[in-house]
Amino acid sequence: MRISEVAALALATRLLEAHGAPRDHAVLQARILVTAEMKGHPSHGLHRLPRLVERIERGIIDPATKGTQRWRADAVMEVEGSSGFGPVVAMAAIERLAPHIPDLGIGLVALRNANHLGMLSHYVEAIAAMGFIGIALSSSESLAGDPRAMLGTNPVAVAVPTAEEPLVLDLATGLVPMSRINHHATAVPDPEGWRRDAEGRPTTDPVRARAGAIAPFEDAKGHGLGIAMELLVAAIAGSALAPDVRGTMESQSPCNKADVFIMIEPSLASGLPARLSAYLDAVRASPTAKAGEPVLVPGDRARRRREAASRNGFDIDQRLWEDLNALSRSRILAFEGQRS
Amino acid sequence: MRISEVAALALATRLLEAHGAPRDHAVLQARILVTAEMKGHPSHGLHRLPRLVERIERGIIDPATKGTQRWRADAVMEVEGSSGFGPVVAMAAIERLAPHIPDLGIGLVALRNANHLGMLSHYVEAIAAMGFIGIALSSSESLAGDPRAMLGTNPVAVAVPTAEEPLVLDLATGLVPMSRINHHATAVPDPEGWRRDAEGRPTTDPVRARAGAIAPFEDAKGHGLGIAMELLVAAIAGSALAPDVRGTMESQSPCNKADVFIMIEPSLASGLPARLSAYLDAVRASPTAKAGEPVLVPGDRARRRREAASRNGFDIDQRLWEDLNALSRSRILAFEGQRS
Repeated sequence: MRISEVAALALATRLLEAHGAPRDHAVLQARILVTAEMKGHPSHGLHRLPRLVERIERGIIDPATKGTQRWRADAVMEVEGSSGFGPVVAMAAIERLAPHIPDLGIGLVALRNANHLGMLSHYVEAIAAMGFIGIALSSSESLAGDPRAMLGTNPVAVAVPTAEEPLVLDLATGLVPMSRINHHATAVPDPEGWRRDAEGRPTTDPVRARAGAIAPFEDAKGHGLGIAMELLVAAIAGSALAPDVRGTMESQSPCNKADVFIMIEPSLASGLPARLSAYLDAVRASPTAKAGEPVLVPGDRARRRREAASRNGFDIDQRLWEDLNALSRSRILAFEGQRS
Repeated sequence: MRISEVAALALATRLLEAHGAPRDHAVLQARILVTAEMKGHPSHGLHRLPRLVERIERGIIDPATKGTQRWRADAVMEVEGSSGFGPVVAMAAIERLAPHIPDLGIGLVALRNANHLGMLSHYVEAIAAMGFIGIALSSSESLAGDPRAMLGTNPVAVAVPTAEEPLVLDLATGLVPMSRINHHATAVPDPEGWRRDAEGRPTTDPVRARAGAIAPFEDAKGHGLGIAMELLVAAIAGSALAPDVRGTMESQSPCNKADVFIMIEPSLASGLPARLSAYLDAVRASPTAKAGEPVLVPGDRARRRREAASRNGFDIDQRLWEDLNALSRSRILAFEGQRS
């Protein structure tokens, strides 16, 4: 079924308020969930709302806190998330650091123990809207399994402001089944598919490959990047590593993952924002794009989907929407009962 | 044929000194080329030496400069590379910024117009040896071609210090033939292979995929990451974008690419370095590793190869070695002739 942005926001906001979230916290947390639906990423959308509600009821989300901020160094804001809503704690820290970025040139937020942030694109888009380059990294729960999974999804997001829309990249790096990790990470990888010759053809001949190029991303690189992101976040934030991370996928445990935001003042080189936009337009206009289908750059698809969903609404699983409405009715009645 | 580390270093150092490089500059530039050979990456090795010599002769490498450093902001060191050796200009800037990292918590070097840096792992390893987390990004020449290629290789390297050896990731992100870029970046990608169900099987069914996971890295992600790195470096350094980058692959043009280094003081959380090491050891000891073949984490393979090459020497194309020796003899004779 199709619902409107306004209806979805209203339902989620009221449900969270009924559970003790201050209005601005409820609005921001709802915004994050609904925007994920609108961008076409329901994995980060409204199906997480019942879990947030359950976590508040169990006392492992504190809907009222913004966390505790302290300057760990001149350019590093460290935040104890105190089981607050991820979006609320993260945006409070970003807004606290932002006014210092023009003087510092670069700054970092290291955030522990906040709840799930949702799509990281939201945060780097907000940073780009302030005129800064944004990089966001999160650690996350590893996949349950036997053998024990060692890597979280370890999402990374990057936004770079331009003269027009920012570039916005948001992807998961490390979520690979253990079987594939081991297949690709054992001591001597099969070089098949790793390299290309001067004509772009796959080759396993190192001499031909020397004249050519490295093949596009595949699993060994994804695995390496996943481990690197895992260590990067833990080393910056001092937080748990994937096998010990809890609380992003269930309603029993406090959330002990970490999130890192880096904010950078772009170069003030004359004409730079226009040059960046022109480059992205050249990528979009690549002459080999299929007829009528421009090449997209990171962020384009989500932006279009979001704009379309804002006009026309978005599709949601009917059962989920009915469940959310039933939950909302019962809790809001209970809430109003308490009040009266 | 097999040669020793010492012989390779001696040849490269003397050849560069004979072309006007101060001894410490020659040693560092030689070290970078030889280490790449030893790590098993001859694409970044000695075959680049004749090109460096040619570039010095044409006046588009200044072997004596360390570039011009200035503080762009409290935590950002901007460097005009002035056509210096990449390794010399980069390490000088890293060493200038390093003493400030404990106070700042994070700092950045934005370097323009230095020559090719070689493998980025060298720089992040040096940063990790100082006790800091290192991230390095470079822009680079796009692949020549018709249609015009839009992306450089855009390498990224990350090193995280632990209680034992650091994790060291060094990979190229964006080097994909235009045909593949367009195939994967058009408006509606084939979702085949993008997602997995709850059992880890590939699926194109969004409902099943919602319970599952994102598939490992493949080309669309590599493309997105490549564009993001491209914009990130250009926006931080104010430098040229790939189609306009020159001077990393030939001997005619001054080098106008850029390099970015981010240095971060790790969390001082108690026991963190040992915890990071233990995690990497757990990845290495994964029970599903093939008998006798431990799972490797980023940096392991290059470290082992380098150690073995330090003991036993390394293989090099016989023709290349003979050419380098001939070049060395003729130039050193000429150099000594000038002196006398």
